[in-house]
Amino acid sequence: MTPRISKRGEKVMFSPIRKYMPLMDEAEKRGVHVYRLNTGDPDILPPPAFHKGIKAHAKGNLKYAPSTGIPEHVEAWIEYYKKLGVSLEPKNIIPTVGCAEAILFAMQAAADPGDEIIVFEPVYVSYKSFSVMTGIKLVPVLLDLEKNFALPPVSEIEKKITKKTRAIVVVNPDNPTGKLWSEKELSSIVGLAKKHGLFIIADETYREIRFSGKPHTLLSEKSASEHVIVTDSASKRFSLPGARVGAVVSLNDSVMQAVLKFAQARLSVGTLEQKALIPLLREAHTLTVSLKKEYLKRRDAVYAALSAIPGVKCSKPEGAFYIYARLPVESAEEFVKFLIKDFNYKGETVAVSPMADFYITPGLGKNEIRIAYVLSVPKLKRAMEILACALAAYNNR
Amino acid sequence: MTPRISKRGEKVMFSPIRKYMPLMDEAEKRGVHVYRLNTGDPDILPPPAFHKGIKAHAKGNLKYAPSTGIPEHVEAWIEYYKKLGVSLEPKNIIPTVGCAEAILFAMQAAADPGDEIIVFEPVYVSYKSFSVMTGIKLVPVLLDLEKNFALPPVSEIEKKITKKTRAIVVVNPDNPTGKLWSEKELSSIVGLAKKHGLFIIADETYREIRFSGKPHTLLSEKSASEHVIVTDSASKRFSLPGARVGAVVSLNDSVMQAVLKFAQARLSVGTLEQKALIPLLREAHTLTVSLKKEYLKRRDAVYAALSAIPGVKCSKPEGAFYIYARLPVESAEEFVKFLIKDFNYKGETVAVSPMADFYITPGLGKNEIRIAYVLSVPKLKRAMEILACALAAYNNR
Repeated sequence: MTPRISKRGEKVMFSPIRKYMPLMDEAEKRGVHVYRLNTGDPDILPPPAFHKGIKAHAKGNLKYAPSTGIPEHVEAWIEYYKKLGVSLEPKNIIPTVGCAEAILFAMQAAADPGDEIIVFEPVYVSYKSFSVMTGIKLVPVLLDLEKNFALPPVSEIEKKITKKTRAIVVVNPDNPTGKLWSEKELSSIVGLAKKHGLFIIADETYREIRFSGKPHTLLSEKSASEHVIVTDSASKRFSLPGARVGAVVSLNDSVMQAVLKFAQARLSVGTLEQKALIPLLREAHTLTVSLKKEYLKRRDAVYAALSAIPGVKCSKPEGAFYIYARLPVESAEEFVKFLIKDFNYKGETVAVSPMADFYITPGLGKNEIRIAYVLSVPKLKRAMEILACALAAYNNR
Repeated sequence: MTPRISKRGEKVMFSPIRKYMPLMDEAEKRGVHVYRLNTGDPDILPPPAFHKGIKAHAKGNLKYAPSTGIPEHVEAWIEYYKKLGVSLEPKNIIPTVGCAEAILFAMQAAADPGDEIIVFEPVYVSYKSFSVMTGIKLVPVLLDLEKNFALPPVSEIEKKITKKTRAIVVVNPDNPTGKLWSEKELSSIVGLAKKHGLFIIADETYREIRFSGKPHTLLSEKSASEHVIVTDSASKRFSLPGARVGAVVSLNDSVMQAVLKFAQARLSVGTLEQKALIPLLREAHTLTVSLKKEYLKRRDAVYAALSAIPGVKCSKPEGAFYIYARLPVESAEEFVKFLIKDFNYKGETVAVSPMADFYITPGLGKNEIRIAYVLSVPKLKRAMEILACALAAYNNR
């Protein structure tokens, strides 16, 4: 008798960001250069201290790190958060395998199978996959491009809160919309969480990449200290996605105890990367200054070029490094396949992510894409030219 | 209203292997040297090619690896498995964050919340934590020290198979018992899996560390190719637990598709470590020869010393690097706390893992410990002397 895989194994989706990568590799093999704007994998070099640290520690035994994290690494996180105005103890921080694992742990600490978590859609796709894997239901609240992704009235969100609701997810700055949450909006969420006894999973991966105001963490909201679970990452602020180091950070002791037990089950986070990140965490606030400037230039270039394409409607991102756009096509999914499989302009094409899978509500986002502006300004300009040509070609087939 | 953490967050247990580590650190701070035999963290140096590889790749961008793994890394796994007599394609292997994540993915691919997986107890503790996290029920079959951990009659295992059973876990060589599964026993398991349409999660982390016969993988059992999901790791055979690289390996395409989707949700495995492991995987069959010899010496030393302690009953491990022992105490848990907190012999003490938490059935294993023989022979001999003294002191309090 042949065994059948689980329902969750069937139901969980392929990442709309990653599923076309084999097609991209094939395009490259055909000699077509692909500007890869599908994934948040920047071309920016990490601070030199990282590789220096890796080399210095690449010797002797490579032991498991403690599940609580390498003490000096955790201390560096504490120092980093201190500069954001938040005082933490080692028990408040547990390193994770990127922000992805931090999200998974936070969701599992907050909710059981059958429970509900409120998310704003479009939502970063890993939340959707993790919900299937963990049996937690995601309940969506729409952020609308037409309303500049403004938080809907609290009463509308409140309608979605049931006895099973355990948490609200706030990604700030937001992936995929580029939205920066205002103080007032954050206060509304905090108010809801306090009123209904909910956790706030605050995904602050892109904290330093914001084009106005200072880096912020919801942990500084003292009145909500029992509610806030921050998921953090070294990937974006240090341009180190391949290092796979993030963290769960919370002032709620019960949450951190649960996360520690989850962490012990999978043992530890990469020893070398934890060590090499220590000087970067300590200097994060200076190391990220030029990074922000570079992304601002890129944002401006992509936004200008994209806005000028006939029929395209897009938002002006306030943070992170994604831009969200509606295209004059029926199916962005089909258009993206066309871009990668069938199209090239002078031997070049562009890869972006179709957005339908970023929504929970069926039918939404069919004509939308997410562009990660992770290449240099000249390359981005070129990529936008190619995108414009591809749209024309696609609509004149 | 203060939020409450999830039931799974409450129910999941602290690792009996890791939970005393803070106490060990305290002992060291008091000036007491602790022989750490609690965790599988060997003092053996990794092959020099690893650190050489890390240094060579520590430059430029540190991008996400593909969720399918870095192609050359996957090719090196294929080459490694070829020498075990198994032909694989890249789609049959997905790198994971250590064997731990491979186990989690295999369990989730095989079973849904409420489903059952059969394990042999005592069982490696992460299975228990993952079962709580994923909502899968573990159904135990006892392996008894008195019967040298022999597989019980098939009819007894069959009694435990219900409509909800999805898989059987076989850890070979076994952690924590040191058992090596015989061909006949493996055939029995394969027969059961085929008859009842079950997966076999074959945890082969310790494949090369066996004191008789050749390294073996259940993937070579051609008739069971749809059933077998191997969870593998680079941690033990290359003495690299801090590298966090393992793999799920299966010839079942549906399983691999599910695992790929799980893998995409958490993006990737450390880029540097995948690259640095390539030459090691290619040379695994020569690199592990001296390793096996060293563990054999250690096994002999620990087994001889432990067997000689009055009232101690232990098994002679056939593989892996753990020894399982029954102590003349009522609570091994209390004895381990005594060892780390209250005892020292000439400024030294020993840390081991109490075994009760390695069982599913309540009440079992109360007087049992697991010793990881991860230190040199002289240190192990010394540690066993200290253990003998501690037992005498503990029972004469």
